[in-house]
Amino acid sequence: MAYELYYWDGLQGRGEFVRLALEEAQAPYVDIAREPGGSARMLEIMDGDGEPCPPFAPPFLKHGDLIVPHVANILLYLGPKLHLAPKDDARFLVHGVQLTIADLVTEVHDTHHPLSTGQYYEEQKEAAKVRATAFIDERLPKFMRYFERVLEQNPHGGRHLVGDALTYADLSMFQVIDGLHYAFPRATKRFGEHYPRLAALCDAVAARPNIAAYLASERRGGHNESCIFRHYPELDKTVR
Amino acid sequence: MAYELYYWDGLQGRGEFVRLALEEAQAPYVDIAREPGGSARMLEIMDGDGEPCPPFAPPFLKHGDLIVPHVANILLYLGPKLHLAPKDDARFLVHGVQLTIADLVTEVHDTHHPLSTGQYYEEQKEAAKVRATAFIDERLPKFMRYFERVLEQNPHGGRHLVGDALTYADLSMFQVIDGLHYAFPRATKRFGEHYPRLAALCDAVAARPNIAAYLASERRGGHNESCIFRHYPELDKTVR
Repeated sequence: MAYELYYWDGLQGRGEFVRLALEEAQAPYVDIAREPGGSARMLEIMDGDGEPCPPFAPPFLKHGDLIVPHVANILLYLGPKLHLAPKDDARFLVHGVQLTIADLVTEVHDTHHPLSTGQYYEEQKEAAKVRATAFIDERLPKFMRYFERVLEQNPHGGRHLVGDALTYADLSMFQVIDGLHYAFPRATKRFGEHYPRLAALCDAVAARPNIAAYLASERRGGHNESCIFRHYPELDKTVR
Repeated sequence: MAYELYYWDGLQGRGEFVRLALEEAQAPYVDIAREPGGSARMLEIMDGDGEPCPPFAPPFLKHGDLIVPHVANILLYLGPKLHLAPKDDARFLVHGVQLTIADLVTEVHDTHHPLSTGQYYEEQKEAAKVRATAFIDERLPKFMRYFERVLEQNPHGGRHLVGDALTYADLSMFQVIDGLHYAFPRATKRFGEHYPRLAALCDAVAARPNIAAYLASERRGGHNESCIFRHYPELDKTVR
């Protein structure tokens, strides 16, 4: 039974964290929004009155009758099935890292939308500049130093965030860093010097055969300014 | 073996979602920050170089050698042990609701800190007024209509968010609404008229013997302006 991924069309967005896991595992899935009538089906599930516990927002995963909302929750569900998470209590560590990544993603989003999600970026540019500066100066190094330390303190060596094998959190870490490079090329120019373990993890993920094939395929959409990771040069700044 | 809850002292904050679950289940737990030297022990775990996969931020739960970070993850771990979550796939629905609650909590926090967590509220009051207005006008009704609809569409009746029995998500829903009443008394004045099922859920949770005893105890700290739910009258507004 194929997994059905429901997410907005034309965006990497939060859906991309799920796609990377499905692609790495070569799991059968349908990206519903890319099917004819797919976006309408997504809204039907969200807004219809027939669904017990409808999702608040995309992405969500449908597998049989079960509908699982939220990236971290979807990966929690998929993790053991796709062999991308441990089955013992270490799964709570992987999930914890994923939730920290989710918090970082929200903070990246808020660099261009600090005041209201209902307004365009252009309507909140001044506030965005303040928030993006605080993000680059304080929050980004706080998160990245933390993730670098997680790799450093992994008793199995620094090749993975948790344990001695690839997990969905490693794939998501790649996606966040890739997005940060797109959105903030000046702030991340010396990323590899500042965070060598994270940079090596990213390279290792990108070089995995299934991920490399996916990244080169048409299924991998590009970054753009309708998404979470947006390149607005005026929000970027050099980091020494 | 008692659960150890690590969180900042003197705050309900995110720790309170965990406390409510532990109190409802009458589970043995130690609120570490309230013990002598507790805060130092918390920082040791977070900042020490000996911990595999240290937590990024409080709250976290220590149970034996396992350290579980993030409210939703802690409740995921505790849920089946405390009989506050189903053991079948419906656990992903409960976790999904909890993650939507977590997103709401972040948005509440950002009403008073829209630009930078490193600055005081007083340094970002103007932006806070814009964000709080958008929150009250757009985001709060979007979230609350959604949660009301989750109750309405529960095929087991509208007494619980998921299924036919109390879960940790019901307890967390109570906590959010309680906090919103404190932070935004004018915006929530007609809460019971607008969201009758949610109001009834809150009353039912508050009336549960273990929760009622907890709320009346010294263990329940008050709301205050160092926390997520802050009462700044200038950010509040009447909702018709």
